Amino acid sequence: MAKTNPGRFFEDYTVGQTLHHAVPRTVTNGERALYHALYPARHALYSSDAFAQSCGLPGSPIDDLAAFHVVFGKTVPDVSLNAVANLGYAEGRWLKPVYAGDTLRSVSEVIGLKQNSNGKTGVVYVRTRGLNQRDETVMEYVRWVMVRKRDLDAPAPEIVVPELKKALAPNDLVVPEGLDFTAYDFALAGEPHRWGDYAVGETIDHVDGVTVEEAEHMLATRLWQNTAKVHFDLTFRPDGRLIYGGHVISMARALSFNGLANAQIIVGLNGGAHANPCFAGDTIKAWTEVLDKAETAAPGVGALRLRLVATKGGAPFALHGEDGKYLPEVLLDLDYWVLMPK
Amino acid sequence: MAKTNPGRFFEDYTVGQTLHHAVPRTVTNGERALYHALYPARHALYSSDAFAQSCGLPGSPIDDLAAFHVVFGKTVPDVSLNAVANLGYAEGRWLKPVYAGDTLRSVSEVIGLKQNSNGKTGVVYVRTRGLNQRDETVMEYVRWVMVRKRDLDAPAPEIVVPELKKALAPNDLVVPEGLDFTAYDFALAGEPHRWGDYAVGETIDHVDGVTVEEAEHMLATRLWQNTAKVHFDLTFRPDGRLIYGGHVISMARALSFNGLANAQIIVGLNGGAHANPCFAGDTIKAWTEVLDKAETAAPGVGALRLRLVATKGGAPFALHGEDGKYLPEVLLDLDYWVLMPK
Amino acid sequence: MAKTNPGRFFEDYTVGQTLHHAVPRTVTNGERALYHALYPARHALYSSDAFAQSCGLPGSPIDDLAAFHVVFGKTVPDVSLNAVANLGYAEGRWLKPVYAGDTLRSVSEVIGLKQNSNGKTGVVYVRTRGLNQRDETVMEYVRWVMVRKRDLDAPAPEIVVPELKKALAPNDLVVPEGLDFTAYDFALAGEPHRWGDYAVGETIDHVDGVTVEEAEHMLATRLWQNTAKVHFDLTFRPDGRLIYGGHVISMARALSFNGLANAQIIVGLNGGAHANPCFAGDTIKAWTEVLDKAETAAPGVGALRLRLVATKGGAPFALHGEDGKYLPEVLLDLDYWVLMPK
Repeated sequence: MAKTNPGRFFEDYTVGQTLHHAVPRTVTNGERALYHALYPARHALYSSDAFAQSCGLPGSPIDDLAAFHVVFGKTVPDVSLNAVANLGYAEGRWLKPVYAGDTLRSVSEVIGLKQNSNGKTGVVYVRTRGLNQRDETVMEYVRWVMVRKRDLDAPAPEIVVPELKKALAPNDLVVPEGLDFTAYDFALAGEPHRWGDYAVGETIDHVDGVTVEEAEHMLATRLWQNTAKVHFDLTFRPDGRLIYGGHVISMARALSFNGLANAQIIVGLNGGAHANPCFAGDTIKAWTEVLDKAETAAPGVGALRLRLVATKGGAPFALHGEDGKYLPEVLLDLDYWVLMPK
Repeated sequence: MAKTNPGRFFEDYTVGQTLHHAVPRTVTNGERALYHALYPARHALYSSDAFAQSCGLPGSPIDDLAAFHVVFGKTVPDVSLNAVANLGYAEGRWLKPVYAGDTLRSVSEVIGLKQNSNGKTGVVYVRTRGLNQRDETVMEYVRWVMVRKRDLDAPAPEIVVPELKKALAPNDLVVPEGLDFTAYDFALAGEPHRWGDYAVGETIDHVDGVTVEEAEHMLATRLWQNTAKVHFDLTFRPDGRLIYGGHVISMARALSFNGLANAQIIVGLNGGAHANPCFAGDTIKAWTEVLDKAETAAPGVGALRLRLVATKGGAPFALHGEDGKYLPEVLLDLDYWVLMPK
Repeated sequence: MAKTNPGRFFEDYTVGQTLHHAVPRTVTNGERALYHALYPARHALYSSDAFAQSCGLPGSPIDDLAAFHVVFGKTVPDVSLNAVANLGYAEGRWLKPVYAGDTLRSVSEVIGLKQNSNGKTGVVYVRTRGLNQRDETVMEYVRWVMVRKRDLDAPAPEIVVPELKKALAPNDLVVPEGLDFTAYDFALAGEPHRWGDYAVGETIDHVDGVTVEEAEHMLATRLWQNTAKVHFDLTFRPDGRLIYGGHVISMARALSFNGLANAQIIVGLNGGAHANPCFAGDTIKAWTEVLDKAETAAPGVGALRLRLVATKGGAPFALHGEDGKYLPEVLLDLDYWVLMPK
């Protein structure tokens, strides 16, 4: 019997199934430094232990998206090795900050299955949780992917499509324990704009851009132990190594510092689409639309719901064509909640 | 109002103004490891805790130039976002070693202003200090840059040109507390040449070269949170992403190990010129001229004043053409003081 | 006198000579994170402190090959600066795990010399040991290289060719103190295959591939402070920067996770050949042949002797042509021992 992992096919999933993903990972200051080398990340809470302490945390956490990438990367061999497409995200929540020294592992539950009408593929819904060494859930999210069938004659499973929230409600959001923005230093953080300065409907062009290189996205994707062939092997995908969608998310989020320097902590992922593939040589830029605002119970802490769009060209604020589809230059359309000083 | 940072223009500066730069940064062993991956750095004091301890320090500091890059990077959004040219450095001093776990921030004072005769630009002089989490100044330097005016009709400020030392005097140099080279292990450090073996006027061809890549200089420049567009965005600068001048400084310094392995600690920056731009594909080589020698009060510790020249071709030791200008292959002309065992 | 290191030539070596290599290096979690960014490394014992602790170790060690690269890198300026070819390895043993915070240095003894019949070069055999800050030997290996003579008229030394083991015997292998695989978690480790599931003669195609980039191999090679010109300077080697052979070893070992996820710890290096040069743009794939099996005295711990072959094309399991020579697409032929749960 072959000892290599062929991945799961659509008929290998059943609703209710629990997948314990390999490989646990201890994240350290090394991962933290690499995150700053890979992305133009400047949010002060993740850059300075002293700044994080002045906000009531024990120190600077690992970037929220780095935690997401570590948790996500572990699911790839079990969930998306035979995936045709990553279809969506929902109900993503960050529940505990991750600190250097923490060890993360991932567990997924299959919460939905729906065979496609072509009989060749199906949609698999999983709810994934990332746990630390104390078995505390540090984050969770739902993802659904289109997966090939191994055996086209395998019977279609009963259709189960989970009801997922279009967006998290403000009281779904979990504020890190102890967080207090009442003594927040806006000068050190880099911008004066506070929660009250943002209006629903407001758009921000983040101006800066990064032209991405093969070596960078491969370093990043390996760091998260995401080993999907398409990102690494040019003989597998001769038209170009496809850049891991999470690399685009992190790049766009980091670029959004310019205009959202105080959008410190990501607490919710409402949804996201990787609208078009990204390849080395593309120049990633980003713009944001403010979708919603909410109060929180924590001192000085407000929440903003933001749409973050990454592009590889074109003008800011254009998203869909006349046909209602994403414009070809749109890479990412992400809907998320952040915490910001009031 | 746009929320993104447009940067300061010439008329936004006044002499005496203090700029508190964002974003503070905790440097760790992650940054230290990355420095060794980005540059062929081999100086033993920065490579081995045990070696640093044998020289009287508590452990291996973060590379002096890494500390400089962190401090410098923070000033970019406030000082050089609208700069046309980086004109010079002076009176740079390293005052305290930076160790893993330290958090650095930067503060600059505007010490000079001089509008250019064209009325479109002016020269801004700033004295920048890097401070750690105990508010100790870890380094300081003067930099002057040519900055665009936003409003060409803005009145010219009173001319203030600071008097700057052509070079630091030996007694301006600060030797790290406790440094003692009397038990220095030359074999472990890699070369037998001690302070007494170097003569003023001596030149050293460092022989080795590194052909630089886009991914490398972007990783480095992001690591120091220097987000100037010219280094990252090929659509902004279609002739090629300009490599951060500090990347060339670090590369040349690391290459100078071969012949200056015992030039352990940088303590002074007398001046420096980025003579020509550097782009990916260039092969950086370096040569040194010994400019001066001095004793210090610390046991076994001497100081050397060195000219470090980085090139992208041509023969070593050629610097200026017949017109008195830098030769086109010269990238960097740096004048600095180092500490070396006697 | 030139201060740069010209390297040693064949006539500079004498049997019995001890070479104390510069520069000691403290390895940290930064190096550990970089190892995971540079290679698709997923072995659980090196990824998770918690997993390593469940196997009886105090925490996750630095990857065995990272330790090898650090020890090896230090020998380059003294052993292979004027080498024409790296001819072989033998009797490599890992004796103590290396942990973040350890400081490594290298010492070599010249154990053999044989001038070639052309009179221009000779073979130098060295036994290299890596030592930590407690002067414990963490690993050792024999390497032999072909080195140029400086002076063709220098007399040939007496021929001394050491007797080297074709392969380490099982009782030559040193199991890390405390290692216990009786509570090994195969699900977390990523594969169910245990020691008993592997048969001598079995072959495994590891399937995955990585197309390598210039920036990556240079980052890696610098990280190990291996400064051989051929890896960095395109003006020195215009046909392309030769990728450090150790980069290929680490890439192939990491790729072998797919099929050998439980081959956790490398304890022996029986031999190895860098069959053909590797350049940026090559896609590295790997296959393994099980050469031998052995019991160990440690609870739940078995040993496998493996042949790991890295290629840049061609079909798996092909190694030699009809002429008995390595096929042109074979990069590496490595013979090593690993520890695996029973």
